[in-house]
Amino acid sequence: MAKQLTSRESDYSKWYNELVLQADLAQHSDVKGCMVIKPYGYAIWELMKDVLDGMFKETGHQNAYFPIFIPKSYMSKEAAHVEGFAKECAVVTHYRLKNDPETGEVVVDPDAKLEEELIVRPTSETIIWNTYKNWIQSYRDLPILINQWANVVRWEMRTRLFLRTAEFLWQEGHTAHATKQEAIEETEQMVHVYAKFAEQYMAMPVIMGVKSESERFAGAEDTYCIEALMQDGKALQAGTSHFLGQNFAKAFDVKFADSSGKMEHVWASSWGVSTRLMGALIMTHSDDQGLVLPPKLAPIQVVMVPIYKGEDQLEAIAAQMKAIETQLKEKGVRIKIDLDDTKKPGWKFAEYELKGVPLRMAIGPRDMENGTCEIARRDTKEKSTYQLNEVASLVPDLLDEIQNGLFDSSQTFRNEHITEVDTFDELKEVLDTKGGFVSAHWDGKPETENKIKDLTKATIRCIPLDAVEEEGKCVLTGQASQKRVLFAKAY
Amino acid sequence: MAKQLTSRESDYSKWYNELVLQADLAQHSDVKGCMVIKPYGYAIWELMKDVLDGMFKETGHQNAYFPIFIPKSYMSKEAAHVEGFAKECAVVTHYRLKNDPETGEVVVDPDAKLEEELIVRPTSETIIWNTYKNWIQSYRDLPILINQWANVVRWEMRTRLFLRTAEFLWQEGHTAHATKQEAIEETEQMVHVYAKFAEQYMAMPVIMGVKSESERFAGAEDTYCIEALMQDGKALQAGTSHFLGQNFAKAFDVKFADSSGKMEHVWASSWGVSTRLMGALIMTHSDDQGLVLPPKLAPIQVVMVPIYKGEDQLEAIAAQMKAIETQLKEKGVRIKIDLDDTKKPGWKFAEYELKGVPLRMAIGPRDMENGTCEIARRDTKEKSTYQLNEVASLVPDLLDEIQNGLFDSSQTFRNEHITEVDTFDELKEVLDTKGGFVSAHWDGKPETENKIKDLTKATIRCIPLDAVEEEGKCVLTGQASQKRVLFAKAY
Repeated sequence: MAKQLTSRESDYSKWYNELVLQADLAQHSDVKGCMVIKPYGYAIWELMKDVLDGMFKETGHQNAYFPIFIPKSYMSKEAAHVEGFAKECAVVTHYRLKNDPETGEVVVDPDAKLEEELIVRPTSETIIWNTYKNWIQSYRDLPILINQWANVVRWEMRTRLFLRTAEFLWQEGHTAHATKQEAIEETEQMVHVYAKFAEQYMAMPVIMGVKSESERFAGAEDTYCIEALMQDGKALQAGTSHFLGQNFAKAFDVKFADSSGKMEHVWASSWGVSTRLMGALIMTHSDDQGLVLPPKLAPIQVVMVPIYKGEDQLEAIAAQMKAIETQLKEKGVRIKIDLDDTKKPGWKFAEYELKGVPLRMAIGPRDMENGTCEIARRDTKEKSTYQLNEVASLVPDLLDEIQNGLFDSSQTFRNEHITEVDTFDELKEVLDTKGGFVSAHWDGKPETENKIKDLTKATIRCIPLDAVEEEGKCVLTGQASQKRVLFAKAY
Repeated sequence: MAKQLTSRESDYSKWYNELVLQADLAQHSDVKGCMVIKPYGYAIWELMKDVLDGMFKETGHQNAYFPIFIPKSYMSKEAAHVEGFAKECAVVTHYRLKNDPETGEVVVDPDAKLEEELIVRPTSETIIWNTYKNWIQSYRDLPILINQWANVVRWEMRTRLFLRTAEFLWQEGHTAHATKQEAIEETEQMVHVYAKFAEQYMAMPVIMGVKSESERFAGAEDTYCIEALMQDGKALQAGTSHFLGQNFAKAFDVKFADSSGKMEHVWASSWGVSTRLMGALIMTHSDDQGLVLPPKLAPIQVVMVPIYKGEDQLEAIAAQMKAIETQLKEKGVRIKIDLDDTKKPGWKFAEYELKGVPLRMAIGPRDMENGTCEIARRDTKEKSTYQLNEVASLVPDLLDEIQNGLFDSSQTFRNEHITEVDTFDELKEVLDTKGGFVSAHWDGKPETENKIKDLTKATIRCIPLDAVEEEGKCVLTGQASQKRVLFAKAY
């Protein structure tokens, strides 16, 4: 059995790392910065992917696949994009190895040098817009609504499992439109899709907003985002949707003939979420006993553990469990019966607690006599005894209750951690003690934002979409401001 | 509308390339050797993936994800693997770009050279076995039954869309077992899974067999395969399953304690299919009018095209189509109503023929009066008139009929192209004229196989699993042989 986790209070960061490893979600690989996503972690990611993929298709998108490599010269075509992305990339320079006859080792063949180096995609705007160029002639070819599920690489020196890795898995939507308005609507639609996913499936409340200029995606005219709050009071950007204007269309010369035959540059959006969501999911709900998963994203929603002495008892209990399993599977519940006889029930209880299984059902000999079972909830740790014949109707309700309960408690925590302040001292005080989002007036200037960042380590997470217009003064400069923005220290 | 395709008879290879492009399945990218899989092609791949993924899970496998990069030194650890795989790889040597202040261009930062080069995975045995090392201590940790969906890169100078590309998508299963027997059973199980998928979903008959030594996977003790026959008489290897013995366990020092505490090396299998299956699917069924898709893998199984004059007719027909769509969707049929009024019905007919949609339903004003519709089958090109009220029950049957019909006709073609020969002259004659598989005796020696390859350009595709024991003489050397093997020219 796994060791006791470090508590969140004593060292949140250590707790997170231990949890990811002990719950068998992921581990570091021998390749610097790259992770191995283990089967249990990958199963959660697959559930996320399936839901998101369905939501993308419902909103009219199709999947496609573009090359992993991007010619180096493409990176320089969009000026702002160069600044933001051209730096920390994996660069392919050669296309062949050979055996060194002297050492017997494999060496890079110096004769197999590429004429132009290739970059392992850090994001695919450039290669995709270079492709769209040939797909778009007239307004009839628009819109293009494409998504790609892919791996990307951004060289990172300081990595953390799921939160920041050199290679990660993600989806990137890339859409092309005839009008500015339509591209903006798409950008907004997708941040709403992300918010819906985060709240309804991850049970993670998020704030939708737009980024300030300095936090914007390299090459975007506007970046929309969803921002979540972790239990340590730090914010986490969980998804972004970018209105790219005509920047990439101009960089790659993508024009279309409108209905009057006039040639115009195409308008664009791009949007993405990644395996970083795994980190957000873990940090939103889990506790010192391990992972807590919202039922909708739990690979195992119910685990059944028999408590028995001897073969006969086991056989009878197992038969009872099979019957319940059949009933629950019909209702679409993901269920596991753990009959492993090399492990004690207590060991199993701790293990499934660590792995965040929402409901644990135990049946022992006395239960068999009474026609009962014991069900323990992972979220509240409450245990109750139920009649076996009510279990099939009860479990789906319990799962819903847990799903909703996790959202509610996360939302309460998050709401309690949005603090309005009107002075810089208050801002700094809240950031240093209570943490969370701090709602404050800002004069809209990047210099001010940078200065606040230097002084507090907090950034503007977003200007909330639902921010109310009000007269105010910037907490740092005292200059006029019409809206509050959210500051926070962030992952 | 697309141009007329080159006919298969006049130039099979040109026909294939044109079909892939015109049916919007894939295209070459500007990155040498890498393809773009377009939405329609990707939708077919997604259907394949979903079915295969389900079959892997039913047989007890879980998905996981391992790094895209492999340290160069790993490639030298398994001796045979080096020979087979260490050559044509994309090599990452640097991890940063920078802006050249003089030219304004992006250049590779010479200070950011990796200590050890990284290879973009051509296959993942090495990185995965290096990971398994830490997962396996005792027999209780076995078996490990893991699959990965991923992109891989093998530098190819001469590429063909889907059939041979530098980057391709695939799945690779990597399993670890306590006994040789169990690993062999796994290897055999997976070649049967592939055969079932090919025959029941792709409607593509395959021969299961084992490879001769020289066609074996680099590092395997035995390679099982499924071999299909394309319409031009060339064979195509559609999937492989490798029994790896203890080779990778020894190379990466992966041992387990058996139940008596004795340390043993672990036994392994690996198995994979790739986007190459798309090429096989296309070439098995398609004709000079375009793609022909088996219904189970058709993104659109039924397309409905209205034939009308004026808004009123269109409205009435569209309403009728919506009603049928609802009925068919309930039965799980993938259906599209094409109401685009910028295209004529004739254009649409040709377009959906090109795209291989199994059934096309047309409804015109006279149909509306008579309560009928016209249904055209893509496979046989037969058109029939049916009562509208029988369509919902009829369509699923028609789709089954097409699915079975495609398999039957492919099987007839394949069976007619397995020719038994007993002399080398016959072998050469059949290969040069009729093509297909040639069943002949072979003395089991790599030298003989190589010589036959030099003389005929044909290779041993496999030694069929169901080969009957019979006394015979090698067609080249006259030496004794107990089994016939299958020769063919191949993709």
